[in-house]
Amino acid sequence: MMVRVILQNLTWQEVDALSREIVVVIPTGAVEQHGTHLPLVTDSLIAGRIAEEAEKRHSKDVLLTPCLWLGASAHHLGYSGTLSADFPTYQGAIKSVIESLVPHGFRKFVVVNGHGGNIDPIGVALRELKHTREELLLCNFCYFLQIQEQLAAILDGPDKGMHHADEAEASLVLHLSPQLVKKDKLRDDGLKPPVAGMVHNFKELSEEGSIGYASLATAEKGIRIFEAAVSALETTILALASGYRLTAYPAK
Amino acid sequence: MMVRVILQNLTWQEVDALSREIVVVIPTGAVEQHGTHLPLVTDSLIAGRIAEEAEKRHSKDVLLTPCLWLGASAHHLGYSGTLSADFPTYQGAIKSVIESLVPHGFRKFVVVNGHGGNIDPIGVALRELKHTREELLLCNFCYFLQIQEQLAAILDGPDKGMHHADEAEASLVLHLSPQLVKKDKLRDDGLKPPVAGMVHNFKELSEEGSIGYASLATAEKGIRIFEAAVSALETTILALASGYRLTAYPAK
Amino acid sequence: MMVRVILQNLTWQEVDALSREIVVVIPTGAVEQHGTHLPLVTDSLIAGRIAEEAEKRHSKDVLLTPCLWLGASAHHLGYSGTLSADFPTYQGAIKSVIESLVPHGFRKFVVVNGHGGNIDPIGVALRELKHTREELLLCNFCYFLQIQEQLAAILDGPDKGMHHADEAEASLVLHLSPQLVKKDKLRDDGLKPPVAGMVHNFKELSEEGSIGYASLATAEKGIRIFEAAVSALETTILALASGYRLTAYPAK
Amino acid sequence: MMVRVILQNLTWQEVDALSREIVVVIPTGAVEQHGTHLPLVTDSLIAGRIAEEAEKRHSKDVLLTPCLWLGASAHHLGYSGTLSADFPTYQGAIKSVIESLVPHGFRKFVVVNGHGGNIDPIGVALRELKHTREELLLCNFCYFLQIQEQLAAILDGPDKGMHHADEAEASLVLHLSPQLVKKDKLRDDGLKPPVAGMVHNFKELSEEGSIGYASLATAEKGIRIFEAAVSALETTILALASGYRLTAYPAK
Amino acid sequence: MMVRVILQNLTWQEVDALSREIVVVIPTGAVEQHGTHLPLVTDSLIAGRIAEEAEKRHSKDVLLTPCLWLGASAHHLGYSGTLSADFPTYQGAIKSVIESLVPHGFRKFVVVNGHGGNIDPIGVALRELKHTREELLLCNFCYFLQIQEQLAAILDGPDKGMHHADEAEASLVLHLSPQLVKKDKLRDDGLKPPVAGMVHNFKELSEEGSIGYASLATAEKGIRIFEAAVSALETTILALASGYRLTAYPAK
Amino acid sequence: MMVRVILQNLTWQEVDALSREIVVVIPTGAVEQHGTHLPLVTDSLIAGRIAEEAEKRHSKDVLLTPCLWLGASAHHLGYSGTLSADFPTYQGAIKSVIESLVPHGFRKFVVVNGHGGNIDPIGVALRELKHTREELLLCNFCYFLQIQEQLAAILDGPDKGMHHADEAEASLVLHLSPQLVKKDKLRDDGLKPPVAGMVHNFKELSEEGSIGYASLATAEKGIRIFEAAVSALETTILALASGYRLTAYPAK
Repeated sequence: MMVRVILQNLTWQEVDALSREIVVVIPTGAVEQHGTHLPLVTDSLIAGRIAEEAEKRHSKDVLLTPCLWLGASAHHLGYSGTLSADFPTYQGAIKSVIESLVPHGFRKFVVVNGHGGNIDPIGVALRELKHTREELLLCNFCYFLQIQEQLAAILDGPDKGMHHADEAEASLVLHLSPQLVKKDKLRDDGLKPPVAGMVHNFKELSEEGSIGYASLATAEKGIRIFEAAVSALETTILALASGYRLTAYPAK
Repeated sequence: MMVRVILQNLTWQEVDALSREIVVVIPTGAVEQHGTHLPLVTDSLIAGRIAEEAEKRHSKDVLLTPCLWLGASAHHLGYSGTLSADFPTYQGAIKSVIESLVPHGFRKFVVVNGHGGNIDPIGVALRELKHTREELLLCNFCYFLQIQEQLAAILDGPDKGMHHADEAEASLVLHLSPQLVKKDKLRDDGLKPPVAGMVHNFKELSEEGSIGYASLATAEKGIRIFEAAVSALETTILALASGYRLTAYPAK
Repeated sequence: MMVRVILQNLTWQEVDALSREIVVVIPTGAVEQHGTHLPLVTDSLIAGRIAEEAEKRHSKDVLLTPCLWLGASAHHLGYSGTLSADFPTYQGAIKSVIESLVPHGFRKFVVVNGHGGNIDPIGVALRELKHTREELLLCNFCYFLQIQEQLAAILDGPDKGMHHADEAEASLVLHLSPQLVKKDKLRDDGLKPPVAGMVHNFKELSEEGSIGYASLATAEKGIRIFEAAVSALETTILALASGYRLTAYPAK
Repeated sequence: MMVRVILQNLTWQEVDALSREIVVVIPTGAVEQHGTHLPLVTDSLIAGRIAEEAEKRHSKDVLLTPCLWLGASAHHLGYSGTLSADFPTYQGAIKSVIESLVPHGFRKFVVVNGHGGNIDPIGVALRELKHTREELLLCNFCYFLQIQEQLAAILDGPDKGMHHADEAEASLVLHLSPQLVKKDKLRDDGLKPPVAGMVHNFKELSEEGSIGYASLATAEKGIRIFEAAVSALETTILALASGYRLTAYPAK
Repeated sequence: MMVRVILQNLTWQEVDALSREIVVVIPTGAVEQHGTHLPLVTDSLIAGRIAEEAEKRHSKDVLLTPCLWLGASAHHLGYSGTLSADFPTYQGAIKSVIESLVPHGFRKFVVVNGHGGNIDPIGVALRELKHTREELLLCNFCYFLQIQEQLAAILDGPDKGMHHADEAEASLVLHLSPQLVKKDKLRDDGLKPPVAGMVHNFKELSEEGSIGYASLATAEKGIRIFEAAVSALETTILALASGYRLTAYPAK
Repeated sequence: MMVRVILQNLTWQEVDALSREIVVVIPTGAVEQHGTHLPLVTDSLIAGRIAEEAEKRHSKDVLLTPCLWLGASAHHLGYSGTLSADFPTYQGAIKSVIESLVPHGFRKFVVVNGHGGNIDPIGVALRELKHTREELLLCNFCYFLQIQEQLAAILDGPDKGMHHADEAEASLVLHLSPQLVKKDKLRDDGLKPPVAGMVHNFKELSEEGSIGYASLATAEKGIRIFEAAVSALETTILALASGYRLTAYPAK
């Protein structure tokens, strides 16, 4: 009896036997610097674990692919060890995974993303797919954009959004893989642009590679953020798995 | 005496005489369907006029290029008359304008965008530029993302964000070019996805091509939204023109 | 009652109501240096105004798009203010406009071009389209190639062809937008290659950016050249609008 | 004290502290059908484990990246669940990983490949890199091409080479991840082209997706093949880590 | 003693010993249908032989490459046997030959072209090269554009220009390779578009594949056309080999 | 009566009259340095002559195209006179030739290759074609990989494989075009990497540009190698021309 639906562990016959209403969940992140305290794998670890947990809870409705860990991280290349795909390569990877599975009959896809720098290119990739394959259901699921209110409620620092290697991200890694956190190096750091919309290389924002209030991170906050993110993903999966329905705007 | 700094009207010698601290302002929008009530040019009209007004108020600090009106609008191609560049072409246009001017010594650029579908590809384009030309100051200025709070205060409909051909956009066109509005066709319309992050072709969201509460649009709201947008752009221009400075996060 | 057929000002429903025998007219030019006397917009101004005038005279047969003003002008990048698209971007823009409209049912397209440097890439772009869409009627209409005999009759200088910022071009701008001409800077200038077919960057041909006998330019010549160009475009539009017919070569 | 040198688990400061004589080992495979008996992950599992084992034995000389599991597998797309990158994307991923690390000072790279279909595009990618970065040491290490003699000695079936999901590959998975093998489905299968050099989609060669004599597979053979492959990789790593030296051909 | 300078027959040391003032001559044509009477190789045969003859007469000043016979011939693909490169490939080939030789110190290049369909993409390719390598001398030498006056004087048919498989081209093949001409099939044929600038696939212009008055072709005319073309190429080569000089326009 | 089937010499009507079971043979090589003793054309000469000889022996079954002489030779660009296509261009040329002929009804293609550096990109190109055109029979026929046993038997030097400008290649040119061999410069040369799979620029392996034991080359060996290669090609052609059949693996 097959209980988990982790694509890489299946044979092609097992995949072939799955329902085509199943939701393909594609985690993606980055291998890029995360300050002095967090490992390079941070974004992929978080996205991968969120996706895995959702699959575990809803195996009947989820086909989980491996994590596309090579993200669009050029703005972090100023720090040793950061790996970055150029945009056409990153977009090509997202599209290739989906385009591989469409001829097999799958048509519902959620890209579970853990890296801010991937949002734009995932958007471009999914829109290119949607343009020619109208029948697909495609979701650009960036976990921290899905839980902004919860994040604001959980965080203690003066900045309530998600930032690179900050209170929120450090809390998540403290929860998911505490042995990879340099606890003695958790630090508050970073500069802000004076106006919105500016495009920066990260070295301009922080010599050490982090922003925000990582010193406030705790595993307990990590648990709460993780649970919020998994929960948002569960909602998304269930919406797609069963009769995805658009609704009218409320009457004025 | 030259009072306006509109690139297309200048000779190369006049451009050559400008200060290299000047901020190049590049309006961009779309020529795409905007429901039954607004003209195809809507997004380009709005972005172009915001940019023009800012140039008029700060000619000393602004070099205004023509509007890149051919946007990334594939999701609107289901409606006659929509023109859309594929993503590499749209990104290539953004990059080409900037890459042309960099060897002439300019290094500060604000892309003033009026079309939601352009946000992702402008992001990709500017990040590609920043990766190899660290010295540039680049801003992905999408007017309605810059004035979300003001928008919420101005709009009367139950939905406070900016949507396609809605109360906010119709108000702007009523202000900027009222003769192009089919006033008898202003309508409330549109469907919402059940979860965030979904990628849709617009025909899935509205047969007629609009979303939100256009019937509530007025020229007077248009004036207020326009002024808010111009004001945000002025702030951005001034921040870049004079000693752009990053600041530390507040103490916790 | 709609009298003008300017795509950007229409709603999608108005475009949808048009005859599919209509000829889509796409003006294109450049924003590039034009010597010390003419504005950067020269080529786009001329192409745009020729196209507009033809539309005004034949609104029933013409659907006019906005001007693709960003041309292939790399050979002029040696002068400040020149904007140039790389070739794939420029070709992509031409193709995108046409490929957007073909699914809407339009199939007759005339690219009205005012910039010599665009001739080759328009040729490549239109041939790529024609290769896969045989049913299209596509015309690479470069206004000065269409009126070579008339030009030779109108010009007074020893050189009878069209050159960059010369007698002919300066006359056109004196007619179309005299306030943009630096009349005190009209100059004769430029060097010739010793053999035909050479590819030059413009700085090799003229330090100031012009070739030929601009000092002979007059608005009156501009009127005559403009009229010749509009007239050639009218002929082309009418040939496409109504039963485009190929004819046999004359008997020998 | 850091004992293992697994890039994803390090901080950027830890990577920055490494010797630049270290050999970057990049495992790559595929997620593609492997007959009725082996999991989709087969090639990535094998390449990843070979690389990991070598890293474990020579941590001082190896920096191990995550496995590029999305291979060039278009010829297996006829079977459900196969994921394939197009060639530019796959080559882009290989190049991106290396191009990310070169500016950090690393210059020795071994791509440890477990999938036959990746050999050509890795070759192209590495040659493109070598063309512009002559100082790099680059190795296209396909494990089964490195141990052809040992394979022939270990295998019992009439065919001594490595084939898809055959005796050799099934033996390796029986050793590395026996719970992923459908032991009751191990089968002998496959067709051969009449001449060498033919390019086939896999469905032409086997309806079930395997070739060769998988029924002869044993975990014990898997151990021997694995050890031979790790040993070849160790030799390669040591050759690059310490004074890579070319030698003359023997006297005739 | 080396008397001929045919690149393919030399060793690298012989190439290395050449003067860098030498003019690299690159013939290019097509392998495409040429009506019922001429062979597919027509354009490459003519361009190749013109280039060869010029090399023979000026070996000291010419380095002759092999003929790039795969042209941009998509508009002839409606006829069996036509081979066509897509535009990026054709342009890539032109650029690759030149970019290979520039680092070896050569900087003067003449592309001797025999196919009308190659003119645009050669133009694009050479301009892309010139943009980044200003020091190069590059000539887009299309033989029949260089000898328009002579052609008009030589031809007897009512049409004086060069057309596909016509009086001029058939005369050239009758001179250069008479055994490849189907003399009994020489025919007058073809249709004309009603206006200039139209882009056609050739099947629209002629079912049989030729245009003009091939029945008037003679080897004697072929000799005269060939001599005119070689002579134009000699002039070009000599202008480039020795102190290429630009000259002022004549006084008005 | 047509006895030879050399595509370039035929008219389109003659190609159209051919059987679609015919095998299209596409020779390809390089124009790249071959040491001090062999001409740049070596690889193209050999591949072209092998293909020609096979066509001569089996004209009924072969349609021979011209030789794609511009190969993927970037690793030889360190020597004057080497011409190299970038990979997309080279792959584009291979694909363009085949894609031109497929709509004409041909579906059997053998690429006869004489240059080691082309193997990978031909592999990529043919696999891209096969992915979308399953019905094609495609062979990546590299002559020296097809005759490894015969080569080992013929060669006298201690190294039995094929190397650049070595005993085998020099013997072939001594047979096929002896006047192009600098007999006084035949030399033994070259260095070996310490491990397999390394990617080198050729200058790292040999200052003079050759590897192996060219001093042992004789025209007589050249005859034998040539005959072995032609014979292998004949076998391939016949297998494709007449009912290409896959066979089962032998029983164990």
